[in-house]
Amino acid sequence: MFEIGLIRVLTSDDQDFVDMHGRLIERLYPNLNVTSACIPDQREGIHGPEQEAQAIPKIVALATERFAHKDMILVSCAEDPGVEQIREALPGVLVTGGGESAAAMALRIGGRVGVLGITDVAPKAYIRLLGDRLVGNYRPELVHSSPDLLTDAGRRSCIDTSLKMKADGCEVIALGCTGLATIGIAGQITQITGLQVVDPVIAMGACCAFHAATARAF
Amino acid sequence: MFEIGLIRVLTSDDQDFVDMHGRLIERLYPNLNVTSACIPDQREGIHGPEQEAQAIPKIVALATERFAHKDMILVSCAEDPGVEQIREALPGVLVTGGGESAAAMALRIGGRVGVLGITDVAPKAYIRLLGDRLVGNYRPELVHSSPDLLTDAGRRSCIDTSLKMKADGCEVIALGCTGLATIGIAGQITQITGLQVVDPVIAMGACCAFHAATARAF
Repeated sequence: MFEIGLIRVLTSDDQDFVDMHGRLIERLYPNLNVTSACIPDQREGIHGPEQEAQAIPKIVALATERFAHKDMILVSCAEDPGVEQIREALPGVLVTGGGESAAAMALRIGGRVGVLGITDVAPKAYIRLLGDRLVGNYRPELVHSSPDLLTDAGRRSCIDTSLKMKADGCEVIALGCTGLATIGIAGQITQITGLQVVDPVIAMGACCAFHAATARAF
Repeated sequence: MFEIGLIRVLTSDDQDFVDMHGRLIERLYPNLNVTSACIPDQREGIHGPEQEAQAIPKIVALATERFAHKDMILVSCAEDPGVEQIREALPGVLVTGGGESAAAMALRIGGRVGVLGITDVAPKAYIRLLGDRLVGNYRPELVHSSPDLLTDAGRRSCIDTSLKMKADGCEVIALGCTGLATIGIAGQITQITGLQVVDPVIAMGACCAFHAATARAF
């Protein structure tokens, strides 16, 4: 088994909620074993630079204290908070985040990419990796933070926005928040728009599957 | 099962040889079913623009005649010959190649990337996607085409070159030829250099695993 430590950046006392991304990865990719934990005191998750700055030291502490022995560490957030810092703190450990995983996958699919997220600016990995392939960043009108996605109105607003993205010429929709994986909206957006949708949690899982495969290939 | 058609760009009458990349993908990633075929009259594979130009119409013909009904089509070559053309010919079908799959994965891993291949210039996807993260392209002295990799001297030359790449500051080694997957050298290079190695066939497999996971996620 390939052992993964997954860090949630949205604090919850409900371990089932904390485990959701890890269980999705385990269900979709065999031979991966995911242990999940969340950082403390981050009830709104990360939806701007201020929350990100607060979260990074907590993310690095969780990684080094709980997951230093893992084959791979995931930061389950499209902003990739702390990913570079964990790489520096734990040089031998593979580390990735939802943003760079999704952006690399979207880049490889080809075509023009739109980001559907909860912030007014696309997460940094999408901007850095997609360059001029990025059509734009779309925040649904009623959504300002990850918990907003859990409401019916938030979900409807995401679907409406995806149709606008198609009309604007997006050929691939990259989800800009792992909260969109939590609500499992990628399949519905694909059905309604006919476009390829890249979910950052599923993309992180593919990166883990790649490294697990490389480790046992030869 | 997720059904994949894999195109080999090196002609062989030996179906076991033709099937090697597909069987590697099936072994490493469950729930994928790969059918492989090679293009005709391409005994040296592709190691330059002239062979690529000859191969592309044959690749597109094979894709449209044999694999149009598949969930995904792979062109098992780091140069990605015909990938764009198949996308145009078969708009509903997912298509990728060894080059763009490996380059996207190497980009996501982070750090400076060197390409170890059989050509004097890195395959186009590595140049396009890696930009200034690309340290350089390295061709082992004794290797000029894919069949050269099958000799002991060719293999030794690859190992020597990987050590030079490490000395030059490469942090990730992306293999620039799927013939290097055929000889299974990624594990050996990792052991000797301690660097992350991205094998384009294993990277294509991760992309298939991603799309298969997305299709059955929700």
